[in-house]
Amino acid sequence: MAPELQSRPIQPNLDLELPAGTMRDLVDKALERIVDHISSLPGQPSADVEGYEALARSLVEPLPERPTEYAALLDLLFKELVPKSFNTAGPGYLAYIPGGGLFHSAVADLISDAVNRYVGVWIAAPGLAQLEANVIRWFSAIVGYPAEARGILTTGGSLANFTALVTARRNLLPDDFLSGTLYASDQVHHSVVKAAMLAGFPAANVREIATDDRYRIRLDHLEKSVETDRRGGLRPFLIVGNAGTTNTGAVDDLDGLADVAERQNAWLHIDAAYGGFFMLTRKGREVMHGIERAHSITLDPHKGLFLPYGTGSLLVRDGDALRRAHAVDASYLPPMQQDTDLVDFCLYSPELSRDFRGLRVWLPFKMHGIEPFRRNLEEKLELAAWAAEELRSIPSVEIVAEPQLSLVAFRVVRSVLNTEAENELNRRLMLKVNARKRVYLTGTILRGKFVIRICVLSFRTHFDRVEAALEDIRSALRDLT
Amino acid sequence: MAPELQSRPIQPNLDLELPAGTMRDLVDKALERIVDHISSLPGQPSADVEGYEALARSLVEPLPERPTEYAALLDLLFKELVPKSFNTAGPGYLAYIPGGGLFHSAVADLISDAVNRYVGVWIAAPGLAQLEANVIRWFSAIVGYPAEARGILTTGGSLANFTALVTARRNLLPDDFLSGTLYASDQVHHSVVKAAMLAGFPAANVREIATDDRYRIRLDHLEKSVETDRRGGLRPFLIVGNAGTTNTGAVDDLDGLADVAERQNAWLHIDAAYGGFFMLTRKGREVMHGIERAHSITLDPHKGLFLPYGTGSLLVRDGDALRRAHAVDASYLPPMQQDTDLVDFCLYSPELSRDFRGLRVWLPFKMHGIEPFRRNLEEKLELAAWAAEELRSIPSVEIVAEPQLSLVAFRVVRSVLNTEAENELNRRLMLKVNARKRVYLTGTILRGKFVIRICVLSFRTHFDRVEAALEDIRSALRDLT
Repeated sequence: MAPELQSRPIQPNLDLELPAGTMRDLVDKALERIVDHISSLPGQPSADVEGYEALARSLVEPLPERPTEYAALLDLLFKELVPKSFNTAGPGYLAYIPGGGLFHSAVADLISDAVNRYVGVWIAAPGLAQLEANVIRWFSAIVGYPAEARGILTTGGSLANFTALVTARRNLLPDDFLSGTLYASDQVHHSVVKAAMLAGFPAANVREIATDDRYRIRLDHLEKSVETDRRGGLRPFLIVGNAGTTNTGAVDDLDGLADVAERQNAWLHIDAAYGGFFMLTRKGREVMHGIERAHSITLDPHKGLFLPYGTGSLLVRDGDALRRAHAVDASYLPPMQQDTDLVDFCLYSPELSRDFRGLRVWLPFKMHGIEPFRRNLEEKLELAAWAAEELRSIPSVEIVAEPQLSLVAFRVVRSVLNTEAENELNRRLMLKVNARKRVYLTGTILRGKFVIRICVLSFRTHFDRVEAALEDIRSALRDLT
Repeated sequence: MAPELQSRPIQPNLDLELPAGTMRDLVDKALERIVDHISSLPGQPSADVEGYEALARSLVEPLPERPTEYAALLDLLFKELVPKSFNTAGPGYLAYIPGGGLFHSAVADLISDAVNRYVGVWIAAPGLAQLEANVIRWFSAIVGYPAEARGILTTGGSLANFTALVTARRNLLPDDFLSGTLYASDQVHHSVVKAAMLAGFPAANVREIATDDRYRIRLDHLEKSVETDRRGGLRPFLIVGNAGTTNTGAVDDLDGLADVAERQNAWLHIDAAYGGFFMLTRKGREVMHGIERAHSITLDPHKGLFLPYGTGSLLVRDGDALRRAHAVDASYLPPMQQDTDLVDFCLYSPELSRDFRGLRVWLPFKMHGIEPFRRNLEEKLELAAWAAEELRSIPSVEIVAEPQLSLVAFRVVRSVLNTEAENELNRRLMLKVNARKRVYLTGTILRGKFVIRICVLSFRTHFDRVEAALEDIRSALRDLT
């Protein structure tokens, strides 16, 4: 060592590098709580947020100057904060669109965080990037996309829909795109409306098309709207179809949409965030027939593959279109691959640095093969069909939307009441069901009417829990009459 | 149980719900590999991607129909794929902007994935959402923002810069915004240019302003450009300043930028993805004086806080402006909080469903308090200063950019060579250094000249490794002469 080095020692700070024993200890202690938590999920309340405001306010604190003992932090998390929530991990969560939270993905994130490799640029971790590229190929195979399809994993459906919208805009419209108009049914997820706003479209450019009695887009209205706009000097460029709406699980006529899109030279994007992975089932393939004709598809692995929150996906049939819309160069970046079989994800995505999401999907797929996912999805379809049948047998109940996939929407009808009073009755019914805390249901407003939804999608939800939901609905109805 | 239920049994599929013993086993086996991997990081090559193409191609496979044994998957990951990479987790990674990969955050993700709660809407997990809101408050305190500041955690700097740009556009420009112009130095990160494109601006609307001899934006050129554009009928609305450029770590004159932005009624966004957390140090606060006057700031915890990839952040001084730009309503969503102290993150962000990122930051902050982060950052500043001093003592070396923070850029100068040959010499020098695999350096092009960068930012990089970098540079130089 040169003498000047010895005279300039810079002390290493080692506080954040944990010794092997500490790493093991942190994980062991967390795992103990996690295993207890997951094992007790069936008995946990389906939702409990009472006193939430005081709890939250009590947690506000300045930047921590001093360390807190790990055990105390785990106590706070597992005894106080996690239980005070909608139990999105539990079997009774039949609200919104459930997910689940495969434990395999938690292990995958433990690994990918700990090894902290970077997959946004292919050359930085070619093997790991290829695992993520495999996941995209598998999703493409599931929806029937060809080999030239490409895609990305996102954090969820919102950014997938946004990326689809930008891709359509950049491929079909000029720089001055403000006369571009886009079309979706009145049941479309608000993330599409938000994506249009983020991508620069005035709110008025998003056309809301009426739906039929099964909440599917009216193709005649759609085509008429497109043609009227074009005659008016606007540039119709994008049609967004639904494969499983959030309100009722409605699946648009995808073949019909593809026909309209072809005739009108529009990009067809299908938001299949909820429904897409039912393509693994026979029924799903029937209901979503034609989905492979879409230019792009949003899928949410954190819904239909039961992953923890944080993994959405966008697939684009012509992968080059996705790349054309997103490739930007910089002198400090490493060289990109010329062969588009070796995917530099940053050229296909709005993100540069980001987590290695692929492992969360790859690990459970590889550990189990696809069959258990298929069978789980089939089970959810059956459970929803059974729930609908049972609901139909309750005299005062009207099925507002039959399950096209695994979601049924219903309401109680009382001919003596006006709509407002009927809505109130249904709200009270839902609250009564939820108060039993075996299941958690949510409602929505459809054509002015409040309806209650049962969406079965968690891999933890089985017959006993849907049966409990029906018992609690029947019992709450009795209490209300 | 009613008789019709017995006649309609729906078999539960339990394949994806792991028994407690299996959960423990998966984690134990992964942890064993992780601990070995992390313990051996100092001896691992700083980068090794030889034969990468064949490796990647060998991994392509169809959707798995059959299960693969877990041990074989871990073997593939830890023996074949993870080692074949830029070692972004190791101490020798002095390339681009290093991160690190705090193990605490891996544990945090294990927990947040396993409990799978949802924090995008406040009422769904009020306690956990508050932890994430605390993290945003702490970041705000670090940069000197007031109590009304709000922000979000993103997946990285790209989406943070994009969200800032949309926020400025939505707050300052009309629906027809195509005459809006934005300004940044010729050293700005390409994610800003990409964000402008995603948000709908033509490429020509992004003005690239010249920099001074320290690669800081020329304020006189900036103000002249803004005024020329305004006289030309354009709408200058956004100035993007740098607090730590990727090329050289340059920090613009932030007070000067704030003065210009005030005079010109423009939004001032500071991209402090790399530099921002140096605000924890005395030197950082001097260099970034005035940062708290910006309207918004991008910070990357996966850089300056040493987190694993996947956590960026955007702070907005007037939190309501962020909310105004992103709040969209939907009938199926739960009620949002009226009190803006209880933050519904989905109203402030482009995302709805997404992972619970807050725990990754909260856990290490709470376990250690802020001091070890501060001391680590101080150490990195000292290491970069030391490296610059040593480089200066090498006769043929020119320091192209003195470290304003923890990055030094240099090149070898040979007066007998033309620029092209000199560039080639520097490229060869860098490749020779990297070939020793003790450190991994990257270069960039500055005003036509290839320069080599040393960026010290990992919590695993200490004096011995920077010393090794200098040894390898000296030795490679000797070999080349």
